[in-house]
Amino acid sequence: MIKVGIVGGTGYTGVELLRLLARHPQVELKAITSRKEAGMPVAEMFPNLRGRVKLAFSTPEEAGLEQCDVVFFATPNGVAMQQTRALLDAGVKVIDLAADFRIKDIAVWEKWYKMEHACPDLVAEAVYGLPELNRDKIRGARLIANPGCYPTAVQLGFLPLLESGAVDAGFLVADAKSGVSGAGRKPETHILFAEAADNFKAYAVGGHRHWPEIKQGLDGFAGKPVGFTFVPHLTPLIRGIHATLYARITREMDFQALFEKRYAEEPFVDVLPAGRHPDTRSVRAANTCRIAVHRPQGGDTLVVLSVIDNLVKGAAGQAVQNMNLMFGLDEQMGLMQLPVLP
Amino acid sequence: MIKVGIVGGTGYTGVELLRLLARHPQVELKAITSRKEAGMPVAEMFPNLRGRVKLAFSTPEEAGLEQCDVVFFATPNGVAMQQTRALLDAGVKVIDLAADFRIKDIAVWEKWYKMEHACPDLVAEAVYGLPELNRDKIRGARLIANPGCYPTAVQLGFLPLLESGAVDAGFLVADAKSGVSGAGRKPETHILFAEAADNFKAYAVGGHRHWPEIKQGLDGFAGKPVGFTFVPHLTPLIRGIHATLYARITREMDFQALFEKRYAEEPFVDVLPAGRHPDTRSVRAANTCRIAVHRPQGGDTLVVLSVIDNLVKGAAGQAVQNMNLMFGLDEQMGLMQLPVLP
Amino acid sequence: MIKVGIVGGTGYTGVELLRLLARHPQVELKAITSRKEAGMPVAEMFPNLRGRVKLAFSTPEEAGLEQCDVVFFATPNGVAMQQTRALLDAGVKVIDLAADFRIKDIAVWEKWYKMEHACPDLVAEAVYGLPELNRDKIRGARLIANPGCYPTAVQLGFLPLLESGAVDAGFLVADAKSGVSGAGRKPETHILFAEAADNFKAYAVGGHRHWPEIKQGLDGFAGKPVGFTFVPHLTPLIRGIHATLYARITREMDFQALFEKRYAEEPFVDVLPAGRHPDTRSVRAANTCRIAVHRPQGGDTLVVLSVIDNLVKGAAGQAVQNMNLMFGLDEQMGLMQLPVLP
Amino acid sequence: MIKVGIVGGTGYTGVELLRLLARHPQVELKAITSRKEAGMPVAEMFPNLRGRVKLAFSTPEEAGLEQCDVVFFATPNGVAMQQTRALLDAGVKVIDLAADFRIKDIAVWEKWYKMEHACPDLVAEAVYGLPELNRDKIRGARLIANPGCYPTAVQLGFLPLLESGAVDAGFLVADAKSGVSGAGRKPETHILFAEAADNFKAYAVGGHRHWPEIKQGLDGFAGKPVGFTFVPHLTPLIRGIHATLYARITREMDFQALFEKRYAEEPFVDVLPAGRHPDTRSVRAANTCRIAVHRPQGGDTLVVLSVIDNLVKGAAGQAVQNMNLMFGLDEQMGLMQLPVLP
Repeated sequence: MIKVGIVGGTGYTGVELLRLLARHPQVELKAITSRKEAGMPVAEMFPNLRGRVKLAFSTPEEAGLEQCDVVFFATPNGVAMQQTRALLDAGVKVIDLAADFRIKDIAVWEKWYKMEHACPDLVAEAVYGLPELNRDKIRGARLIANPGCYPTAVQLGFLPLLESGAVDAGFLVADAKSGVSGAGRKPETHILFAEAADNFKAYAVGGHRHWPEIKQGLDGFAGKPVGFTFVPHLTPLIRGIHATLYARITREMDFQALFEKRYAEEPFVDVLPAGRHPDTRSVRAANTCRIAVHRPQGGDTLVVLSVIDNLVKGAAGQAVQNMNLMFGLDEQMGLMQLPVLP
Repeated sequence: MIKVGIVGGTGYTGVELLRLLARHPQVELKAITSRKEAGMPVAEMFPNLRGRVKLAFSTPEEAGLEQCDVVFFATPNGVAMQQTRALLDAGVKVIDLAADFRIKDIAVWEKWYKMEHACPDLVAEAVYGLPELNRDKIRGARLIANPGCYPTAVQLGFLPLLESGAVDAGFLVADAKSGVSGAGRKPETHILFAEAADNFKAYAVGGHRHWPEIKQGLDGFAGKPVGFTFVPHLTPLIRGIHATLYARITREMDFQALFEKRYAEEPFVDVLPAGRHPDTRSVRAANTCRIAVHRPQGGDTLVVLSVIDNLVKGAAGQAVQNMNLMFGLDEQMGLMQLPVLP
Repeated sequence: MIKVGIVGGTGYTGVELLRLLARHPQVELKAITSRKEAGMPVAEMFPNLRGRVKLAFSTPEEAGLEQCDVVFFATPNGVAMQQTRALLDAGVKVIDLAADFRIKDIAVWEKWYKMEHACPDLVAEAVYGLPELNRDKIRGARLIANPGCYPTAVQLGFLPLLESGAVDAGFLVADAKSGVSGAGRKPETHILFAEAADNFKAYAVGGHRHWPEIKQGLDGFAGKPVGFTFVPHLTPLIRGIHATLYARITREMDFQALFEKRYAEEPFVDVLPAGRHPDTRSVRAANTCRIAVHRPQGGDTLVVLSVIDNLVKGAAGQAVQNMNLMFGLDEQMGLMQLPVLP
Repeated sequence: MIKVGIVGGTGYTGVELLRLLARHPQVELKAITSRKEAGMPVAEMFPNLRGRVKLAFSTPEEAGLEQCDVVFFATPNGVAMQQTRALLDAGVKVIDLAADFRIKDIAVWEKWYKMEHACPDLVAEAVYGLPELNRDKIRGARLIANPGCYPTAVQLGFLPLLESGAVDAGFLVADAKSGVSGAGRKPETHILFAEAADNFKAYAVGGHRHWPEIKQGLDGFAGKPVGFTFVPHLTPLIRGIHATLYARITREMDFQALFEKRYAEEPFVDVLPAGRHPDTRSVRAANTCRIAVHRPQGGDTLVVLSVIDNLVKGAAGQAVQNMNLMFGLDEQMGLMQLPVLP
């Protein structure tokens, strides 16, 4: 059994990790920390866990994280980088669901996250946990930077195209829509029900932190700097991301076949038959990314539709997938829940 | 492995049965019928099943239902009663998720369902599939009348009270609120998104078909005819029923202890600590009923709050629970999914 | 033109007052205060007001409220009672949308609102602003206690019944459901979109502040202390309250006719024909209360359904109705918007 | 007073016309037709109209439409073209809210709408009712083709850009999101609450009927054929369209100033200050289009955000605006409702 600790379990990523790990056949939940809620049973905060998760929140000091085999950080940005070195030194593997280790260029990270990085050397070591891209590196890693939610949906949608070299890498557009859980569980006015329900808006068009993360990935796929525009929107869903991607075709090929082939062996990427449109609920509560490829009216613009559950394939599910790889388990273990529809 | 057939798989109850049964370790899905959609893979209609359920809809004639061990009817009222006798005669157990076998008094059934009953003798044989009430009878049954969604939530909330005899059975009120999936998947104007979203209303206050079903149960619990008012409401949830029950106390007792004791051994009923309020999402997609007991300001009115997911404990999940009992399996097999929150 | 000031304009009640008053033909908006947002144009916080409301928030000191003809308090409980005497002394009429002047028994108020009352004599003077009950007193008042949202829906539903004396006043039940805007615009976790959407729950079953306010009213209608149980629920609507009321009939009469006659001359109460069910959207954004009366299966229980928009008839609209009465205007002036459906 | 008739009043466009026209000071509602519902008071189908609209549905034969001054068609495509000539011959002006007269190229129309056109000569005469483009022509018209909802939002967003010639007209992208009321009130499975709530999807990526309508407009603005990709999405709103538009800059200019100047005199187009994001609720139930212009990180891609209420500026409100122009009234008459927020 893998002994698992979770740091920062009072947010949506934390409760989703608990939902998934509580049923993982090879996992033993050892500790979940929250300084503020220390002593409270997690099932009191999250009643869906009643009778199923016995843990109570503990302080980081009492949690005994260094006795775990792996620790997940479900914390705000800037926390994991303070604690990771000590855990790694103690032989504990680390999976950070925040952004501390995602961007290789420290200057870029510091600009977008507005703080000094505590351990640039560990950024260099960290493996970006997108299994469809880095499966082998993940297997050997001791530190995983779990991708952001938008970056997962957008990169999986662009990956085959940029690898193929058949589109203009200088003008890529990602119009992405996220459910409100993506904004976290901290109370803020703009994500109140009465503000966000029956409402739709773009935000951060001038610059969102996921832009440099995605661009770093796309640059890598293309082998050169890409031109990339990213517009996120808040949509009245609880869960779900729908990324609509636009690229201009520069070379003819069978794009449907390209995607099907690229993802043929992937357990968590499903390429829909031609002409279909994935809906976010078709992946609700499951670790799946569904993708469709369209070429409207046979023109020179390719449209890729990519959907995930932001809390599963976009966060906790992908983190468990990475854990499975790091510990030599079946990659799908504990992740076989069917999506909940309706 | 239990060979399972499903009649009528194009509604929400059908797809929910598939979601649960696809992961049940002792079940082999053999057939799912829909005369209208025969030939279409179920995963084409319900994309959450892609890659996980290979079945296609078949006509009833081709389905080979008589070779199954058990057949679930997820059909409109009046269908199961036409086909059940032949299946029972062939040695197949039957679980009807519709209302054909729920009401023992044939005249009452015919009045409320506005059709002649095809097999009153089988109604007499059928066991009402509420395990918390009839567990032993279910174990020995070959025909189960799976309870309605409102009746499950309301009866589990009133059961300990009426058994105790400590409330006035002559004036019971159930104010119940249901998510829209309870109205089914057949297109009708009043359940369109633009009609039902951001809207709340009562309906069928003059008389709802679940009233006689619930009354039959309450009469049984009380050992005499009760006075019972039932007001259902449509609320903008996809899934979930919240029943708020009112009863007048006639004899003092510790009602919190009454409920805790009555359901202490029940795997799918969770009595909350005093002072708590269950929310519907705490049982979303899971086979759990959560109950809280309140006595506002120590007065003589008892308020019981009872929540279920109408498609799980209120339909497909309870049907699988009944199947487990009928086949001598662990009652919780295939039903251990944690609720999805948020 | 009536010179109007608003104290505390950053909540939903405040913006709703602005929406209504901006189009009122006899109103001149003079000031809206918010110490925190002083200097910000209100249309920057509430973009629906762009181009239509030119005011900026000002500090209370700069607002010149004592030069207004009437001041609305859209503030948290406990604010209006500190400022009302000075305004009244300056000849300004006051309408408090909070609870400071609603409950005549000071001890009861102090118990439920957990603070000492600053001006009990003004409570005695204040008129409870339910026009259907107190129209003449409102006309002559200089201080109005605008009713709460639940109290408006519940009292209008019980009023004819208790006046008639034809029901058991000892056992009245109000099962009430509110949209989330009723909880205000201050960020709190339980009213986040990802918490409150697709979710339904009761709250404060043990005791809600609107209980003593409603009970005070019902006691008055009945001419004696009533037995009254009140269970509020949070439902995923932005706006809307649906109160489902239960009473036991003690004397036969034509209840449909009773309601129709009682409200025949009321411009803002609409009694539906027998057998109908009001939905909350049928009053969305309008100052209307719609009511239906049912007697399920001719039994001895009466069910009354009463819906309002909590921000209009339940708050800002009723406040404007009171203002119209206080200033001798047509009661419907500025309140003739049709409900927005869908 | 203008005598108004409405053909086809049982859909959302019809009830929205009634909501607006019932309070229009220069309008007398004479008739509303529905063959199927003839005899039923409209307020019985749409209870928000109770007490405010006395009309009952009548058959077209009884309606006396030829005695009206103007007739609105709120009918399915293909109806207006059968009845318009007779009305025009009788001296009645016609405003068609469907698509019969929107596309000048009859062959294109017949291809996309899959029927033969009944009166190509009237298509030639009809004026496309986008006041910001064709105000003067509308004033003199007797037949108006009221624009589609998506076309209104998208064209108003692209209009200044294409007039300026400062973007690449060969690669324009409109990623548009619509509330579910845009799909109409006819019951279909995919727009049921339980299908469309908490769900997001693209649809008709291969080709939507609004594509040729928008392209016709954009071609006109640019003075040459444009390259235009249009992807519509269904989002869980009741009302609202959010169009996110992408264009590549080919010539430097102050784009914020361009938009502000172009729409400076427009009563129903509001250009937000730089850096802002319009939300759909800021125009809910009002005849306003709000637009913001962004240039992410100073790059060569321009992003325009354009929001409308699909039933108001996208349908009924724009139709009333056109009526006002046709009859020489103040363009804003009857359209001054403030948006409903929250």
